[in-house]
Amino acid sequence: MRTLQQLETPALLIDEAQMDRNIARMRAQLRKLGVAFRPHVKTNKSIDVSRRLMDSPQGPITVSTLLEADYFAAQGVTDILYAVCIAPNKLDHVARLRAQGVKLSIILDSLEAARLLAERAKARGERFDTLIEIDSDGHRSGVKPDDGLLLEIGRCLERAAIPVNGVLTHAGSSYDCPSPGAIRAMAEQERAAAVLAAQRLRAEGLGSPVVSVGSTPTALFAENLSGVTELRAGVFVFFDLFMAGLNVCRLDEIALSVLGTVIGHRPDKGWTLLDAGWMAMSRDRGTAGQAVDQGYGVVCDLQGRPLDDLVLVGVNQEHGIVAHRSGRRDGAPHLPVGTQVRILPNHACSTAAQFGHYEVLGAGGQVDARWPRFGGW
Amino acid sequence: MRTLQQLETPALLIDEAQMDRNIARMRAQLRKLGVAFRPHVKTNKSIDVSRRLMDSPQGPITVSTLLEADYFAAQGVTDILYAVCIAPNKLDHVARLRAQGVKLSIILDSLEAARLLAERAKARGERFDTLIEIDSDGHRSGVKPDDGLLLEIGRCLERAAIPVNGVLTHAGSSYDCPSPGAIRAMAEQERAAAVLAAQRLRAEGLGSPVVSVGSTPTALFAENLSGVTELRAGVFVFFDLFMAGLNVCRLDEIALSVLGTVIGHRPDKGWTLLDAGWMAMSRDRGTAGQAVDQGYGVVCDLQGRPLDDLVLVGVNQEHGIVAHRSGRRDGAPHLPVGTQVRILPNHACSTAAQFGHYEVLGAGGQVDARWPRFGGW
Repeated sequence: MRTLQQLETPALLIDEAQMDRNIARMRAQLRKLGVAFRPHVKTNKSIDVSRRLMDSPQGPITVSTLLEADYFAAQGVTDILYAVCIAPNKLDHVARLRAQGVKLSIILDSLEAARLLAERAKARGERFDTLIEIDSDGHRSGVKPDDGLLLEIGRCLERAAIPVNGVLTHAGSSYDCPSPGAIRAMAEQERAAAVLAAQRLRAEGLGSPVVSVGSTPTALFAENLSGVTELRAGVFVFFDLFMAGLNVCRLDEIALSVLGTVIGHRPDKGWTLLDAGWMAMSRDRGTAGQAVDQGYGVVCDLQGRPLDDLVLVGVNQEHGIVAHRSGRRDGAPHLPVGTQVRILPNHACSTAAQFGHYEVLGAGGQVDARWPRFGGW
Repeated sequence: MRTLQQLETPALLIDEAQMDRNIARMRAQLRKLGVAFRPHVKTNKSIDVSRRLMDSPQGPITVSTLLEADYFAAQGVTDILYAVCIAPNKLDHVARLRAQGVKLSIILDSLEAARLLAERAKARGERFDTLIEIDSDGHRSGVKPDDGLLLEIGRCLERAAIPVNGVLTHAGSSYDCPSPGAIRAMAEQERAAAVLAAQRLRAEGLGSPVVSVGSTPTALFAENLSGVTELRAGVFVFFDLFMAGLNVCRLDEIALSVLGTVIGHRPDKGWTLLDAGWMAMSRDRGTAGQAVDQGYGVVCDLQGRPLDDLVLVGVNQEHGIVAHRSGRRDGAPHLPVGTQVRILPNHACSTAAQFGHYEVLGAGGQVDARWPRFGGW
C-alpha cells in the first residue's frame, strides 16, 4: 500500500468512494426512468472503471474510437456502439471486429455514407448494424428528425439489406444550458426528436427498434424518457468543474484530480509554481465561458478541499502557476517546496486523456491500486 | 509501403523532408553562433526524431519529465538535463538514473530546494549535478540574475559539496514578442541575464562553467551568444501555427499535421465534419491571442496546401468542425464523405502529445515508417 506522498507527480487520482456514489446516482436515475444503460467509456478508457458501469461483462457500451472497441473487445465486451459517424477508412477495422464476434453498431447521417455502406454490402457481402444519427439541437451532426433525408438514408440501407437498428442523438447543447430547468427542457427536446425520427422510420417499415439518447446533463435531469430504449453518458463517473458550473454536480462530487507538487515561488507576483502544467491538466478551458472561470483548475489540499480560492491561473508544458482567483498578491497560504496539492480539472475527459493510468485513492487517503488506461487510435 | 489512403484516421504525420530542413536550419544557426546544442526532446518524445537532433548517440539532450529521461537512457543517452525545478518526490528517481550511469542534471531556483538537496547529500551521501534557474524575462520561474538569492543558493549547495554546474534560463516571453526585432532583443536579454548570473557565481568561486539558454524563437533569431555554452530548443523540429504567427517559420515549413477524414456535412451552417476533434488536435488555442486566429488548425489538402481558407472552427472529443475562416456559409469546396485532409496544428508539443506514434511521410506522399512516441510520467 502506498501513500500519496510516495507518488511521483503529476499523478491522476480517482476518489474511489466518490466515483461509486456518482455511479449509484446514475443507476438510481436509470431505474426511475425505466431505461437501459449503454455507458460511454470514452471518459474513462479503463476496464477497471467500466466494469462498474456495465450491466454485464459483455456490455453494452458506447465508444468514441475503434481502439476503444478493440480494447474492450479483448476484455470480453461484445455489444459495442461506435458513436461517431463512420469514415470509409474504418470499415476494414469494423469488419475485423465483427469477424471476432463483436456486435459493433456504427452510425451515419448522410446519403453519401449510406451509399458507401450499400456498395460494400453488395460488393463484399458485408453486413453492418447501423443507427441513423439525429440532430436534436443544432449542435453538431445528425439528420433533422422531420427531414425527408432521414427516410432516404433508411431506404438506401434497406435496399442493400443493411438493418436500420434505430436512431441515436446526443444533445451536446446541454453543455451550454444556463440552468437546470433549461437542461430538463433540453432532455425533453432530445427525447422528442429521437422518438419522432424512430416513429417516422417505423411508419415506413424501416426497422428502428433502438432509440438511443444521452449526455451527462440530460441523462441526470430527464424527467420522462418514454419511447427511449437506451441512455448513454460517460463523464458523470468522475464529473468535473464544467459539470459543477452547470449545477449538474457539486464541487465535492468531483472524483478525479491531478496530484501536483510545489516546486517554487514568485512572491513578487503572488505565484506558487507546480510540476503540473498543461501536459497534466490538458489545455481545456471549458469553464472560461461559464459564470465562474476556474482557470486551468481549482487547487485543493490532499483531502480534496479547495485551498483559499487558489486556482491554476497559467500553465506551460510541465509548469503550473497557482495564484489567488482575485489576482491579489499577498495573503495566500505559503505552500513550501515539496507540498502536494490536488487540482480539480475543467474537463474529466481531456485531463484523464493525458495520463497512462489512474491512482485509486481509498477512504483513508491511501493509494489502493493503479488502474491502466489507454489513448490513441 | 502504405499510402495515406490506407491509414485509419486520425493519424499524426511527419513530413520527413521538411523536418530535416528544419533541423538543418537550426544546425546552421548553431554553427554561426558557435554554441553547443542540447536539443529539447519534449516536443518529439521519440528516439527516431531525437537521433537526428543529437550530436552523438549519448546526447546531450534536455527533457521535461523523468519518464523522458528513463526512455532516452534506455536508448543509450547518458547526458541528460531535466529542465523543470526539482520536486523532492522525484529524488529517488533521479538517484536511480544516476546509479544507471546517467549524468542527469537537475535545476532549482530556491533556497528551500537547495536545503532539501543539501540534507539528502549529507544524510545519504548522494551527489547531484545542479544548475540554478535564472529568470531572464519575468515569464515564469527562476532567480533574478542580480538577486542576492542567487549566491545564497550557490553557497548552500557548495557547503553540501553539491557542484553548481552553472545556470539555465528560458525566455518564454519570446512567445509573446510582436516582431522578429523584438525576438532578437529578447535573445540578447536572455543571453545577458544568464551570462551575468554565471559571472556572479564564478566571482564567488561557485563553479558555473555551464551557461544554458534557449527557446525556439530566441535560438533562431539570436545574433550573438558570447558567454553562452549551450542552446536548448525543441519545437523547431516540427514548427507549428503559433511559430508561423510569430514569423519564426512559414506555414509551408510546418512538418507536423493531423490526417483526418470527412464524415459528414451541415450545408445549412457551412460546416464539414471530420473525425479529428480535440483528442487529436489537443485543446491548444495558442493562436487565439495572435494577429491571425487559426482556430483549432488550418485545413490543407493531402499535399499540405491550405484549402481555400478553411479552418477547424470547433472541436468535440472526436469531431472537428471545418468552416470558412470568414464565417461565410457558401462557396466552400465540397469535400465528399471519405475525403482526407491534413490539419496544421496550433502547437506541435500539445498535438503530438495526443498520439502514440508518428506516420512518416516520404517525398512521394507515401508512408515510409511508423515511429513510436510516448507520453505520461
